[in-house]
Amino acid sequence: MAKKNAFYAQSGGVTAVINASACGVIETARKHKDKIGKVYAGRNGIIGALTEELIDTTKESAKAIASLRHTPSGAFGSCRYKLKSLEANKREYERLIEVFKAHNIGYFFYNGGGDSADTCYKVSQLSEKLGYPVQAIHVPKTVDNDLPITDCCPGFGSVAKYIAVSTLEASFDVASMAKTSTKVFVVEVMGRHAGWIAAAGGLVEDHGIPVVILFPEIEFDQKKFLSKVDAMVKKHGYCSVVVSEGCHYPDGKFLAEQGTRDAFGHAQLGGAAPVVANMIKDALGYKFHWAVADYLQRAARHIASKTDVDQAYALGKAAVELAIKGQNAVMPTIDRVSDKPYKWKVGVAPLSKVANVEKFMPRDFITSDGFGITTKCRTYLLPLIKGEDYPPYKDGLPQYVRLKNVAVPKKLPNFKI
Amino acid sequence: MAKKNAFYAQSGGVTAVINASACGVIETARKHKDKIGKVYAGRNGIIGALTEELIDTTKESAKAIASLRHTPSGAFGSCRYKLKSLEANKREYERLIEVFKAHNIGYFFYNGGGDSADTCYKVSQLSEKLGYPVQAIHVPKTVDNDLPITDCCPGFGSVAKYIAVSTLEASFDVASMAKTSTKVFVVEVMGRHAGWIAAAGGLVEDHGIPVVILFPEIEFDQKKFLSKVDAMVKKHGYCSVVVSEGCHYPDGKFLAEQGTRDAFGHAQLGGAAPVVANMIKDALGYKFHWAVADYLQRAARHIASKTDVDQAYALGKAAVELAIKGQNAVMPTIDRVSDKPYKWKVGVAPLSKVANVEKFMPRDFITSDGFGITTKCRTYLLPLIKGEDYPPYKDGLPQYVRLKNVAVPKKLPNFKI
Repeated sequence: MAKKNAFYAQSGGVTAVINASACGVIETARKHKDKIGKVYAGRNGIIGALTEELIDTTKESAKAIASLRHTPSGAFGSCRYKLKSLEANKREYERLIEVFKAHNIGYFFYNGGGDSADTCYKVSQLSEKLGYPVQAIHVPKTVDNDLPITDCCPGFGSVAKYIAVSTLEASFDVASMAKTSTKVFVVEVMGRHAGWIAAAGGLVEDHGIPVVILFPEIEFDQKKFLSKVDAMVKKHGYCSVVVSEGCHYPDGKFLAEQGTRDAFGHAQLGGAAPVVANMIKDALGYKFHWAVADYLQRAARHIASKTDVDQAYALGKAAVELAIKGQNAVMPTIDRVSDKPYKWKVGVAPLSKVANVEKFMPRDFITSDGFGITTKCRTYLLPLIKGEDYPPYKDGLPQYVRLKNVAVPKKLPNFKI
Repeated sequence: MAKKNAFYAQSGGVTAVINASACGVIETARKHKDKIGKVYAGRNGIIGALTEELIDTTKESAKAIASLRHTPSGAFGSCRYKLKSLEANKREYERLIEVFKAHNIGYFFYNGGGDSADTCYKVSQLSEKLGYPVQAIHVPKTVDNDLPITDCCPGFGSVAKYIAVSTLEASFDVASMAKTSTKVFVVEVMGRHAGWIAAAGGLVEDHGIPVVILFPEIEFDQKKFLSKVDAMVKKHGYCSVVVSEGCHYPDGKFLAEQGTRDAFGHAQLGGAAPVVANMIKDALGYKFHWAVADYLQRAARHIASKTDVDQAYALGKAAVELAIKGQNAVMPTIDRVSDKPYKWKVGVAPLSKVANVEKFMPRDFITSDGFGITTKCRTYLLPLIKGEDYPPYKDGLPQYVRLKNVAVPKKLPNFKI
């Protein structure tokens, strides 16, 4: 087989460690120059492939690529853009093939979550359906931790660590203030449908913190919730509430609904924390403070989990190795070997079983009253936040890399998306 | 002079490093056992003195006290409680003297901000006005950085570092998403009247980030603001907005006013970020994300500034040394010796010149358009966020200490505050 180039792109919401996966892909491809030619990155995800806006990663120094390991966000730009089915928009697939042909691309590495796994799966079918030989490998990434088969998703461990650390710190704060001032602290965290991130707030219970969690998996019951908060404050003098942005009433209405939707058609959320805080103030009279972590949580490379960084890199590396072995339509996974000591290895899953499947918190990870996490959940979560992996600093700020992102000269006519 | 015990208390909003000052006070007092007897801490600030709820810090191990240096929040509990004047509430001052007499207290160390400096100043006058010999030393602490005379206030450098790091990280995130999704990220930060914390967001400009800052010192002009944001997005593809909770319209109305007030009578704020974000969406149509950092910022010991930790400790130490030298009604200060290299030493200020004075951002620290920081401001801020001082971790979480907080047996009848 003649040597082919590779296409790599980042998709969906970025994370603290998606660039660590990019680092794994590029460094590993560079070690296999006999098999893989250049790695071209898509400028702004799959859009870069459609518009032929390719970035030549060979123009970046080894040092710059190595720095991706400690740099949050998507170094090549990400996108929220979901390919329709081959039948619904054949034009886009034909364009992809044109671009791939023009730049001799035979490997497609797509780094994203559930929606991106679906896109990657569609690209993997190009070979069979349109006769263009391409191997598509999905590199998992999502702070939501909601991909199936893999034990966890790169990006999640670092958000989980950020939320656990922040909840611990803010809880220490409110405990200090509770005598004459704030008695309840509410922090809103990400997680549209799955409560994995919110669950991480529960890890502070091991440090003696009273915490009430509102999961998207548990229908919101205002009366039960207020009674739980009241009992916590009466017992401990204060409490912290971790509310998932996806927390909703039995009729499906989000506590935080703003009425706007993103490009994938998902409701855009934000603002559950003030809703919950005011609810507590009105019913119980407790003084509150609230925070909405939003992007701060998923971008917080400064407090990334070492486990997470290592896994993000390992899956980028594994994706290239799977490609070299001739695989298509697969996703490398994290397989948990043991909890204590925590051991994991890289496995592989067929994309047909990954695309469009969401993994929610199992019911036995949530306490029977619906407001906390169980020992089983704690055992699952703890290894994922373990270890610190600090970026280098200069003059008080982290030294995050900005790549040159040199464009590959275009060979084709423009294409409108 | 017979050996006297010391009273130490924490007041007002706690910080990531107020316990480092406590550590400085207690460790230094322990080194001068010939001069100072026991250090009694007030449970929940000055309230502990009034209610005779004293904590015996001699019951804590050297290791536990040393751990205060890396533990955020107020280890003994803080309070929002301002003593009235001697004339308005003589009963409270007489009670303080009773408690001090009963426990042989001759030193009063009060660790707080502007309101607390006022309380400390009133206590310092007990000697002259009511004939009880007590030396009152104020240990400065405030994330707002608004105390006069001292070059900076312990607590501020760490919040500034947190805001600078978080703004940098979130800006990298939005830059990745801007092509098809979020174009403006808004983060709300603390600072009721002074824009020091918001200014820290401006430090990311050195990293090429387009950022617009809304200071409390500059009256909000919606038209000018929207036009600035629009220009930034058109030029860079995205921008970040750092809005101070104290940002207000020309008539004094806060963008975020919730209508509630704290125990000091200050309006309780929160929610400027969603107001600003929706304003941008409505006028310019840009997709936004917003965060409210709230307690996360001031409790974030995990990303504390080493300069700040060192200074917090040094001022606790200096307070005890001033007491030993016989001083009363003073506050140790940070005096800047040089900017580059940054050098500082400990000075001293009379409390009469500290109490009830607020230090705002000088106008020449803010750019002429009112939306950014000047080189002069950058030169001031940069050394304050310099250096990392990570806490120890175990199983993924920081090992923050919880003291035993053993009560000193009461000797007096109850007192109602």
